Amino acid sequence: MTGEFDIIRQYFTRNSADPSLRVGIGDDGAVIQPTAGHELVVVTDTLVAGRHFPADARADDIGWRALAVNLSDCAAMAATPRFAFLALSLPEANDTWLEEFAAGFFELAERDNVVLAGGDTTRGPLVITVTVLGEVPSGKAVLRSGARVGDRVLVTGWPGRARAALETWQRNETVPDGLQQPWRRPDPRTAAIDVLRESASACIDVSDGLVADLGHLLTASGGDSPLGATLEADALPIADALVDAVDEEAVECVLFGGDDYELLFTCAPESAIQVREQLAAAGVTATAIGVVEDAEGLRLATSDGNTWELPMHGFDHFSEAGS
Amino acid sequence: MTGEFDIIRQYFTRNSADPSLRVGIGDDGAVIQPTAGHELVVVTDTLVAGRHFPADARADDIGWRALAVNLSDCAAMAATPRFAFLALSLPEANDTWLEEFAAGFFELAERDNVVLAGGDTTRGPLVITVTVLGEVPSGKAVLRSGARVGDRVLVTGWPGRARAALETWQRNETVPDGLQQPWRRPDPRTAAIDVLRESASACIDVSDGLVADLGHLLTASGGDSPLGATLEADALPIADALVDAVDEEAVECVLFGGDDYELLFTCAPESAIQVREQLAAAGVTATAIGVVEDAEGLRLATSDGNTWELPMHGFDHFSEAGS
Repeated sequence: MTGEFDIIRQYFTRNSADPSLRVGIGDDGAVIQPTAGHELVVVTDTLVAGRHFPADARADDIGWRALAVNLSDCAAMAATPRFAFLALSLPEANDTWLEEFAAGFFELAERDNVVLAGGDTTRGPLVITVTVLGEVPSGKAVLRSGARVGDRVLVTGWPGRARAALETWQRNETVPDGLQQPWRRPDPRTAAIDVLRESASACIDVSDGLVADLGHLLTASGGDSPLGATLEADALPIADALVDAVDEEAVECVLFGGDDYELLFTCAPESAIQVREQLAAAGVTATAIGVVEDAEGLRLATSDGNTWELPMHGFDHFSEAGS
Repeated sequence: MTGEFDIIRQYFTRNSADPSLRVGIGDDGAVIQPTAGHELVVVTDTLVAGRHFPADARADDIGWRALAVNLSDCAAMAATPRFAFLALSLPEANDTWLEEFAAGFFELAERDNVVLAGGDTTRGPLVITVTVLGEVPSGKAVLRSGARVGDRVLVTGWPGRARAALETWQRNETVPDGLQQPWRRPDPRTAAIDVLRESASACIDVSDGLVADLGHLLTASGGDSPLGATLEADALPIADALVDAVDEEAVECVLFGGDDYELLFTCAPESAIQVREQLAAAGVTATAIGVVEDAEGLRLATSDGNTWELPMHGFDHFSEAGS
C-alpha cells in the first residue's frame, strides 16, 4: 500500500523549469512569484464519481477532465493558466489507477504549459477538486458582464456532442467514434485565450448548456436592465457526428447539452468577422449564432420566419429531477 | 430544494471591501490584484466526512475546520492568508446545515480577514476542499528546509489535546471541556505569522504529530546529510486538561498526536528567547523543546539522564493499520 506522501512524490511530481515557481510540491504550500503587471485569475472545479464521470471511466480520462474543466474556466476569463493544485480523495491507493490518472492529467498540463504546484491526497470517496491559477494583463480579464446590445453572440466548436454521447451511453449503446473525444476528453479552448482577451466583450464556458450559460452571461451583463438575445437556428454549428447519433434531436443537444466546454462569447458587431479569422488561425472554429438585444429572454429564429421562446433553464446539480 | 447557483449566492456571498479582489463569486473565476513586492503562497487541504471529522459533527465546526487547516498551512509558510476558495460536495442542499457550515467558516474567515473569493458546490459525498491564497514579502516565506545544526526547536501551544479528545470520543466517553476547543475548533496560529517571518529558520504545522512533522522538517532541511534532534522530555508543553484526560499517556499524545495545528519551528539559538517573547506579545505561547543536531534520528532526553530513540512515524492516510 502506498502512503500519502509517496503518492504525491511518486505520481505527481514532475520537474518544472518554470522560474515563477519558487517552491513546489513538498512544503506546506507552494510559493509563486506573480508576473508584474498582471492580475491573477483563480478557478476551482470539483468532479464526483458517478456524477461528473461514470464511476468506471478510464483513469486517464478522469485525470484529463479534472484539469480540462478548470482550464476551460480560465480560458473563459481570457487568463493564461499557469499553476494547478490537485485535491484527490480516492478509495484506495491503486498504483495502476494513479499512474493512468496522472498520465491523463499531465498530458493536458504539458500541452498547455500548466505546472502542478501542490495538492493533497486522502482516502475517501472518489472526489477530485482542481484549482488553477491563471494570469492576465491587469484589466484585461473578460467577464460575463461585458455584453452590450448589438453585440454578436459566438460559440467555439460544436457544442452538444458530449450530451449526445452521454445519452447514447446511458441507453447502453456504443458511443460513436465521432462523439468519443468530446465526451471522454473535452478540449478546453485555451488556444482561443489571446484572441478573446483582445476582442471579446463577455465570455462564459458552456458547462450547463448553451442556452443556460447564455442566460447567465446576459443576466450578468444586464444588471438592473436584463438583456436578451435572438439566436438563428440555421447558424447553429451542428456536427455531422451529432446528426448521425441523434438525428432530429441535434438542435436540442446543441442548445441544452452541457459539458462540452466550448466557449460562448460576445463581441462588437464590427469585430465578428476578424475574431473568427483570428480564432481560425489559432486552430479554433467559432460560429456567429445570434445578437444581443435589449428585449429580455432568449429567442430562436428559424428560416421560415418563426421565432420561438427558449426556456432559460440549465443543468443544476441540486435541483434537477430524479437525482 | 436549493439550486447550485443559489447555494453559492445565498450562503457564501459576503460583501467584501477588499480592493485587491477585482471580481469575486459569480463569474467563471475570481480576479485578484496581487500585492507588489510579494510572493503568493497557495495551500490546499481536503476534509472527508468520517475521516477528518465525525460524520455527525456540527456543521459550524466543519466549516471552521475546513478553513482552519488551510490557514495553519499558510501560517507555517509565514504567509498572510488573503483569499479562500471553497469546493463543497454534499449529499443534499440542507438549508440548516449550509447556514451553520457558512457561519463557522465565516467566523474564522472574518477573524483573520480572509475573503471567500470563489468556489464550486456539487452533489456528492460530503467532501470539502479549501484552497487558500496567501501573500508574503518576496523571499520571506519560511520553508521546512531552513533548519541548521544548533537551531532550537519550538512548538506553539499545547499539542496532543486533539488526539486525546479523539480517543475519548472513540471510547464513547464525554470529551472534557478542556479538550473541546482544540478538537472541535483547532485554532490556526495566524497570530504568529509576523514573528515567524522574521525569526524562524524553518516551520511546519503539526498535522501528522509533533515527532512525524519534526521528521519531515529535518528531512527537508538536511538534504543529502540528514539532520536529527534531541527533545527534552521535561520541556514538552503538557496541558493540564491533557493530563486530566489521559494521565500517563499525555507525553505520547504530545509527541504523536496530530490535528492540533500547532506550529513547530526552528530558530537560531540566540533568537529563541526573543522569539518566545514576541510570540507571547502576539498572544501565542511557544515552548523551546529541543535542539537540531547533525546526528540523524530523533531522541527524547529524560531528566534521569536517559535518552530514548523516537520512532519517526506519523499518521498516514493510506498506510495506517486498520483503515
